[in-house]
Amino acid sequence: MSDAALSGTVHVDLGARAYDVRIGAGLLAGAGAEIAPLLGSRKRVVVVSDETVAAAHLPALKAGLAAEGIACEALSLTPGEATKCWRELEHVTEWLLAQKVERRDVVVALGGGVIGDLVGFAAAILRRGVRFVQIPTSLLAQVDSSVGGKTGINSPAGKNLIGAFHQPSLVLADIDVLATLAPRDFLAGYGEVVKYGLLGDATFFHWLEDNAAGLVARNPQVLAHAVTRSVEMKAEIVVRDETEQGDRALLNLGHTFCHALEAATGYSDRLLHGEGVAIGCALAFELSARLGLCPQEDPSRLRAHLAQMGMKRDLSDIPGDLPSAEALFDLMGQDKKVLDGAIRFILARGIGQAFVTADVPREAVLDVLRDGLAAR
Amino acid sequence: MSDAALSGTVHVDLGARAYDVRIGAGLLAGAGAEIAPLLGSRKRVVVVSDETVAAAHLPALKAGLAAEGIACEALSLTPGEATKCWRELEHVTEWLLAQKVERRDVVVALGGGVIGDLVGFAAAILRRGVRFVQIPTSLLAQVDSSVGGKTGINSPAGKNLIGAFHQPSLVLADIDVLATLAPRDFLAGYGEVVKYGLLGDATFFHWLEDNAAGLVARNPQVLAHAVTRSVEMKAEIVVRDETEQGDRALLNLGHTFCHALEAATGYSDRLLHGEGVAIGCALAFELSARLGLCPQEDPSRLRAHLAQMGMKRDLSDIPGDLPSAEALFDLMGQDKKVLDGAIRFILARGIGQAFVTADVPREAVLDVLRDGLAAR
Repeated sequence: MSDAALSGTVHVDLGARAYDVRIGAGLLAGAGAEIAPLLGSRKRVVVVSDETVAAAHLPALKAGLAAEGIACEALSLTPGEATKCWRELEHVTEWLLAQKVERRDVVVALGGGVIGDLVGFAAAILRRGVRFVQIPTSLLAQVDSSVGGKTGINSPAGKNLIGAFHQPSLVLADIDVLATLAPRDFLAGYGEVVKYGLLGDATFFHWLEDNAAGLVARNPQVLAHAVTRSVEMKAEIVVRDETEQGDRALLNLGHTFCHALEAATGYSDRLLHGEGVAIGCALAFELSARLGLCPQEDPSRLRAHLAQMGMKRDLSDIPGDLPSAEALFDLMGQDKKVLDGAIRFILARGIGQAFVTADVPREAVLDVLRDGLAAR
Repeated sequence: MSDAALSGTVHVDLGARAYDVRIGAGLLAGAGAEIAPLLGSRKRVVVVSDETVAAAHLPALKAGLAAEGIACEALSLTPGEATKCWRELEHVTEWLLAQKVERRDVVVALGGGVIGDLVGFAAAILRRGVRFVQIPTSLLAQVDSSVGGKTGINSPAGKNLIGAFHQPSLVLADIDVLATLAPRDFLAGYGEVVKYGLLGDATFFHWLEDNAAGLVARNPQVLAHAVTRSVEMKAEIVVRDETEQGDRALLNLGHTFCHALEAATGYSDRLLHGEGVAIGCALAFELSARLGLCPQEDPSRLRAHLAQMGMKRDLSDIPGDLPSAEALFDLMGQDKKVLDGAIRFILARGIGQAFVTADVPREAVLDVLRDGLAAR
């Protein structure tokens, strides 16, 4: 793989809402040049981040902006999923108003999925919509949450139940920042990467199996390819179905199980979102195999790859108590993907062949959950 | 005018987001038949209203729904502009989630502009968007806020600064309910009616002058025509410019002044929104005349018509203290219509000929405000 693989652009072709995702090294330092074309006569951006990310990356971003004469006001929030709440939405939105952000201004979200979702949502509702730039600093945010325009906060009733579709105007995925992630956060993000292979590209899944060592070692060239291919797949699906009327639901492979597990563990660090996605994908393949939809060896092969990466893969890998299979099933029913009372599942006919169905016997789901809980 | 004028439909032609506004008598009683085609297999709607409106009209709506076998859960909020706030947005949204409202369900907003804006916004962000039906029960809501998809809440920094564009799926404007309005509320709504004549239809303004007695007496045929022509004009402008990039700003005739006056009076009942619009229109015509843009007699003619209707028309009609002209001007700068730091004004070349401009000398605005304040 040549050095050229270290940088590239994925175009998200959404007509009037089209934008580029730049993927590569050194993008924080070059942020000023990337963002300048979006600005009007006022050379100013406002940046919202979290305290951890701001400490690590805000100076580089500010320097990159200053290099192009762009002024910057910044707000840093408490890190963690609990920040995706009503109170912080109000906090960020009112702060943006206090900074006199107007319709032609640009808001920058510097951080992981929590910051991207929260700040994107605040930008969506501020003056009924101002533009925003995603600078995702986690692997999960780079390959998933920063692309596609889903923004939002959590409700006591469930995750991401409140939000808006609001596409960013630009996404800067700087591969360099991935080197600074804690191992657990990095691997959690990898849960979304492997999901793309599982849902629609068996060749990519095989490439991931072959490159597990390079991924674990965070080889920049390997990471750049993994991020780029993931973003390409996400962009293709988002363009086909911007507001999740159909195909976009494929991106939720593993997520219906995941959301129930996250609710059951109180959205705490007992289970990170990407960890839940990986376990959820394993459960979805187990369910698919038991229903005779996919080869029996596929769930084992997936679990073997997750093991190869040093990742959680079973309910038994979640510390602490879990509720009963029935209670988990009820939590799945609170997911946004419920239509007319029926839970829609993303199942698979094999690795790389996911599909959406509402036709899943409740007992089959309960059996998979019961067996997983019994192995704990 | 025949009885046929008592009912009609204005189609808002927004492609995938197109919808009908039905205007006429007896629409609450017929709501079930109107709403049924929007529902899936679940014959259930959720209704959000305020306590005053619910006491007056919820039984009729419930009966109309029950006639078509549609079940109904209802929530009633405290009446008043203060309800358009973060706390009530959270309250409504979490209540809708507790009712297990899903993406294919329909939320009904039964009330005036406050309820329509708040509930429409909650529907916009619930699961990233569920459909909603507007049943406007004030004249202001029937001719303005229920049509066009602007939803939102107020911020301490200003009115309507937080929100979403979210078109309703249907609007039912029942002329009968206008008979139950308090005189002050009815006249406040009329401020928006006269605005349509002023901004784009001199013939309609003349018709309003000629029919002032019928309007004050709330003659149903006169009201049906006034509401229908207002909704037609709003729909035409919204179709030309759904998200307020250009022409839609014409609808803000009088509103930049109005928002400053509302902020200065604390969004209290010292000044109702529609009263502020009427005074704002008079100020906008006064400013236009002083700038030599429109005939000198136009502002007087407008004030004479407002007097004929028994309405507030000058700063001297606002009870209590007002801040200085300079302070009012600064409040105008917090309006959403600010672009790159310049306030955009809607001025007029004559009755029925409004236009948008950012080219207004600050001193000219201050002079109009100073003279208005001096006359108090």
